Amino acid sequence: MSVDQSYQRPLLLGMVGGGEGAFIGAVHRIAARLDGEFELVAGALSSQPERAAASGAALGLAPERCYADWREMARVEAARPDGIELVAIVTPNHLHAPVARAFLEAGIDVLCDKPLAISVQEGRELAALAQARKRLLAVSYNYSAYPMLRHARELVRAGELGELRLIQVEYAQDWLALPVEKEGQKQASWRCDPALAGPAGALGDIGTHAYQLACFVSGLRAVAVCAELSSFVPGRRLDDNAQLMLRFAGGARGALWASQVASGCENALRLRIYGSKAGLEFEQEQPNRLRLTCLGGSSEWLSRGRVDSAAAIAATRLPPGHPEGYLEAFAQIYREAAEHIRARQQGRSPAPQSLALPQVGDGLAGLLFVDAALRSHRAGGIWSRL
Amino acid sequence: MSVDQSYQRPLLLGMVGGGEGAFIGAVHRIAARLDGEFELVAGALSSQPERAAASGAALGLAPERCYADWREMARVEAARPDGIELVAIVTPNHLHAPVARAFLEAGIDVLCDKPLAISVQEGRELAALAQARKRLLAVSYNYSAYPMLRHARELVRAGELGELRLIQVEYAQDWLALPVEKEGQKQASWRCDPALAGPAGALGDIGTHAYQLACFVSGLRAVAVCAELSSFVPGRRLDDNAQLMLRFAGGARGALWASQVASGCENALRLRIYGSKAGLEFEQEQPNRLRLTCLGGSSEWLSRGRVDSAAAIAATRLPPGHPEGYLEAFAQIYREAAEHIRARQQGRSPAPQSLALPQVGDGLAGLLFVDAALRSHRAGGIWSRL
Amino acid sequence: MSVDQSYQRPLLLGMVGGGEGAFIGAVHRIAARLDGEFELVAGALSSQPERAAASGAALGLAPERCYADWREMARVEAARPDGIELVAIVTPNHLHAPVARAFLEAGIDVLCDKPLAISVQEGRELAALAQARKRLLAVSYNYSAYPMLRHARELVRAGELGELRLIQVEYAQDWLALPVEKEGQKQASWRCDPALAGPAGALGDIGTHAYQLACFVSGLRAVAVCAELSSFVPGRRLDDNAQLMLRFAGGARGALWASQVASGCENALRLRIYGSKAGLEFEQEQPNRLRLTCLGGSSEWLSRGRVDSAAAIAATRLPPGHPEGYLEAFAQIYREAAEHIRARQQGRSPAPQSLALPQVGDGLAGLLFVDAALRSHRAGGIWSRL
Amino acid sequence: MSVDQSYQRPLLLGMVGGGEGAFIGAVHRIAARLDGEFELVAGALSSQPERAAASGAALGLAPERCYADWREMARVEAARPDGIELVAIVTPNHLHAPVARAFLEAGIDVLCDKPLAISVQEGRELAALAQARKRLLAVSYNYSAYPMLRHARELVRAGELGELRLIQVEYAQDWLALPVEKEGQKQASWRCDPALAGPAGALGDIGTHAYQLACFVSGLRAVAVCAELSSFVPGRRLDDNAQLMLRFAGGARGALWASQVASGCENALRLRIYGSKAGLEFEQEQPNRLRLTCLGGSSEWLSRGRVDSAAAIAATRLPPGHPEGYLEAFAQIYREAAEHIRARQQGRSPAPQSLALPQVGDGLAGLLFVDAALRSHRAGGIWSRL
Repeated sequence: MSVDQSYQRPLLLGMVGGGEGAFIGAVHRIAARLDGEFELVAGALSSQPERAAASGAALGLAPERCYADWREMARVEAARPDGIELVAIVTPNHLHAPVARAFLEAGIDVLCDKPLAISVQEGRELAALAQARKRLLAVSYNYSAYPMLRHARELVRAGELGELRLIQVEYAQDWLALPVEKEGQKQASWRCDPALAGPAGALGDIGTHAYQLACFVSGLRAVAVCAELSSFVPGRRLDDNAQLMLRFAGGARGALWASQVASGCENALRLRIYGSKAGLEFEQEQPNRLRLTCLGGSSEWLSRGRVDSAAAIAATRLPPGHPEGYLEAFAQIYREAAEHIRARQQGRSPAPQSLALPQVGDGLAGLLFVDAALRSHRAGGIWSRL
Repeated sequence: MSVDQSYQRPLLLGMVGGGEGAFIGAVHRIAARLDGEFELVAGALSSQPERAAASGAALGLAPERCYADWREMARVEAARPDGIELVAIVTPNHLHAPVARAFLEAGIDVLCDKPLAISVQEGRELAALAQARKRLLAVSYNYSAYPMLRHARELVRAGELGELRLIQVEYAQDWLALPVEKEGQKQASWRCDPALAGPAGALGDIGTHAYQLACFVSGLRAVAVCAELSSFVPGRRLDDNAQLMLRFAGGARGALWASQVASGCENALRLRIYGSKAGLEFEQEQPNRLRLTCLGGSSEWLSRGRVDSAAAIAATRLPPGHPEGYLEAFAQIYREAAEHIRARQQGRSPAPQSLALPQVGDGLAGLLFVDAALRSHRAGGIWSRL
Repeated sequence: MSVDQSYQRPLLLGMVGGGEGAFIGAVHRIAARLDGEFELVAGALSSQPERAAASGAALGLAPERCYADWREMARVEAARPDGIELVAIVTPNHLHAPVARAFLEAGIDVLCDKPLAISVQEGRELAALAQARKRLLAVSYNYSAYPMLRHARELVRAGELGELRLIQVEYAQDWLALPVEKEGQKQASWRCDPALAGPAGALGDIGTHAYQLACFVSGLRAVAVCAELSSFVPGRRLDDNAQLMLRFAGGARGALWASQVASGCENALRLRIYGSKAGLEFEQEQPNRLRLTCLGGSSEWLSRGRVDSAAAIAATRLPPGHPEGYLEAFAQIYREAAEHIRARQQGRSPAPQSLALPQVGDGLAGLLFVDAALRSHRAGGIWSRL
Repeated sequence: MSVDQSYQRPLLLGMVGGGEGAFIGAVHRIAARLDGEFELVAGALSSQPERAAASGAALGLAPERCYADWREMARVEAARPDGIELVAIVTPNHLHAPVARAFLEAGIDVLCDKPLAISVQEGRELAALAQARKRLLAVSYNYSAYPMLRHARELVRAGELGELRLIQVEYAQDWLALPVEKEGQKQASWRCDPALAGPAGALGDIGTHAYQLACFVSGLRAVAVCAELSSFVPGRRLDDNAQLMLRFAGGARGALWASQVASGCENALRLRIYGSKAGLEFEQEQPNRLRLTCLGGSSEWLSRGRVDSAAAIAATRLPPGHPEGYLEAFAQIYREAAEHIRARQQGRSPAPQSLALPQVGDGLAGLLFVDAALRSHRAGGIWSRL
């Protein structure tokens, strides 16, 4: 376990989006301070000046660092001697790319919510920009930071599963089973509006998480998908359910199901991978364990805190049986982003385990996945290449 | 519960297939006698005369009723005053239809293993024949006889789930993850041989179970499927993994996964159905419970013995907490077949709950499903209508 | 697996108790025929002649073998050339010993429900009688016949758990949480009446099952107990909840909880044993698995059908993932009783695995346990030696 | 949910104990900052000056606020205008009371690890002192801050369980199954040394947690206990396993098991309470759910985020399906301590939900429980009154 680290001053954090009433902004703030890695000092929490100021005040920001315009924030913060060292982008999807671009151009590292952008083109431009400016463009694929998924990846890499054959991944929720977007539910409103969310609904919002997890653990990328998107709630403009079949590089096959209308499901992200020797299963709602099933044998439940891979240990804070959860995994993203920033500041390479941090390449892979799925669906369900 | 019934003499049972070394034959025999409904008195347990005789002797059959030729058995038994009243067909798939035909033509009721036949054409002929001869042609879709699945169907019928939207069904095993068919494993050998198993591998062997379960509980039939079949084990001639997306009548969508190479999976048949109001989940490996999840609410585990539908009660023998299993569900098929036979003998209608017995219509639906899946796959994965 | 056996004619079975409305009688009848080992041919199903005759007729017994007096039944059946070869005693507790005595004295083997008797003295006399007459006196501690508990015992014997330290066993139900004995519930009425049930309520009815299981798997017997018995339901004359602490031979410690007023519990019999190297856990409601937890390591779920001990295999009928349950375990008791009887008939020793059959010694151990617990409780909760 | 709060400056925190290598000190530090309620500014992290200084530096403390003597720390911090507003005591047990006394006497609020002290006498003096000085003396019974246990308490209070009858609580670990205290394991060394840990081993270390949880949820206190303490590891001077039976005020009965030698158990704290109408079950290792079982009915799994009691909501940060864990519950203790301090600073009453914070009364109850258990055990296992 790695609870303590030798002291380093907290890095300075800014946030775009995440004003009052937002869910994910508050999550980012807890995650950023949980390990003492970041101190929030600036924000463009809302585009409405009054709301931006009020939201900032409620978080203890100095008034002059409560911006209503993120372009101004990028410019001003880049110029301050005590300017922010990382910006967290927690806006609706359509702003991810423009905001990320502005901060990267200002030389500021970025941690952006997924999806990275709303088009492959945007994603490619961001990738090029981050590389050109040598800045971090991390993507908050937080689920892949669970210690037991880090361990799962090591098991796959070590060949414990044999040759991979099957990847079944699903992400089921029920919070959009009714037309809540028409009832003023803020989270739903923008997610169901193509202008704000982009062209994909459940597929983009949670399907990309599922796809990233499958790729992260398996080490594989899909080469083709066959998709069936549905909008079950009358009047909904984006898909609220996505069924996909996948062909992975190397011959593995898989299925992905993402739904926001699966009545009774909370946040049921579940990954199963089967190889020629063994299988593994992970359920996000019980993240402290990983099931390993051996061909013809019994099943083993591996526990966080009782597995010995360096990858799992690096992401673990507590002994076995002391459950860690969503916030701890999210904080791991921040811990790894901090390590990248500090390493560059100190002129060294990031610690090996921090390389698991999802970055622009992962974000772009997600956009390619969504794009292929949309093409498949629009063509009536033919296999489409990524 | 319904452990006791007033005494009726056991019906006389014959069996085709199921000689020494067979698995499912022994299951049928336990199931047939568990409730005291049948007495095994004749068999064509093997096509090799010596083996037929030895297998019959080991089961206490009279020598003259140990047949090596099922055609002869049908003819002789039909002519005996104490001839069999039901024949159980537990041969490899390619014989299902010819054997069933022979016994139906002899006027003997039939309980046939699934798949009903190896072609839609065969299935249609059997359906016509059974109807013309007014004989029972039951199909051993045993899983649908679990009390909690009977209850699940009642919940759907009563509208507890609202309008059905999603049906996710899967059936994963690992016993064909290695090329055991080349090592003399009897069960594997015929299942991997197109001449004996028909044109579908995992799709036909277990995918049809999964499809039947989905239809049985939902009350829906698929109207189109999109299939991706794979043979992961080198040299295997039939699919050992099947991924499908399904469109159901009325607009529900679904996915079906059948695999015999999912390392570590035993007999993981799992059904999930989500409607606009609630969802339900059943896992065959823990058949005494059913999970009901309400939209936005908590999840309830319903227990066999503590649910009050007449359908569940009719299929239940023991109080809650006294687990029933696979054999009891299989015995329910025999109990219901017996009820059909006795009802006709007594000139009355079968008891309402016994109408849940899977019959030739269900078997034909399975053949249509397999046929559409094969067409889809062979065309490179396009949606094919049933 | 051992589904098939070479054919042997069914042994002839009689039953005392178990008339209409009885639960456990019907269970015994299914268990007796499940493997084809026994055929029920005689019964004293009720002490009321008309009811005895009607119950027998409903089971297909010949009228002359429907007895109202079990003493007559013992005498007559012993004299018949086709007399019963085993009697199953399924009466209320107070009759167990007298009935068993009558049949043993008539030279007929006995399978008796637990508790073996209602006093230690009765139990000792039965033990002496069975030994003197060289007859089987089996006790239906059916739970110990689950394959995974047979396997658990082998793990303990093989030293996989190290030196045993702790035994936690519990058996919780809720069916007596209300005063149902006053409302004509037949099962409850006699169990709550000291004249019929003996001096112990939940302690005797289910506590003895729990204690037997603990002893069976651990290979240990308690040397002292400290008991606290309670009657939570007003007016109830016997305990409906029993808490005990136990000291086992060799230094292991344990606790036993038996309750029939634990609201929401169905038949929650659960055994946990911890040694210096590993622990194991079994839950009767999910009997196809056994949890093995290693010191400092992860936990493994062993599956029925995937463990390789001869003891487990001998008690297993189906492949992994095809759940077996309560009736199959109960049938195993009958299968083993049959093996004992056939072995004596054939002048050979019973097959080694059939020696796991619970017999009079186990029944007597249960009576000693109850006796010590009652003494402890009556003395205000002091440690009492067995 | 209550992620955001309007901004208030972090309170100033000091810590006694918790230097390098300590586990619980790091937990406290994360918990203190998770919600932004506290900033660590001073510490007596070790009694060795060099180690104290180094540990403080690693945490970013100013050198002059790194104390080696907690008496000096109390005096100096009380005198500083920017002195600490709360001290967290995370030392071995024997120092809890003296340190708490010193800070209370200096007028500084205290959050002390359990057990509150090593004798009832010490506990009583602390209670009197805290009352006299009108200072907070909170005790880190962190488990009772899980949202679903807060909800469980509300269910009991609202009568959903009916009249309480049974309380089964257990806390099983395996980390002391080997004599690790002799191998330099720091956590084990002091816990197995009576001079540092006090007279109780597992009983005091984890049994008190279990007892507090039982009392917290049930609203009851034990009136008598009967205890059996064991030391299974050769040479161990304190108990590593404790079995107890309990009589609660009002007639409920219960059992408590605390073990640190249960091979394979991680941190298995589990509470079950049964009343005349329903039962509930909570397992700490899966803290986001609570099982509610109704008499004669099915069982319901209530989810954190989907229950509506104000008590649960106040302790919840994330939506359902986004697991919270040990650190979040621990942070809740800090959040509630902060609320108490701020309320006094602001001359108002603490928010109602913050009154669930465990305080000196709960700590004293734990000491009375340990004392009665030790008396019972030493007298050979007689019932002893609290």
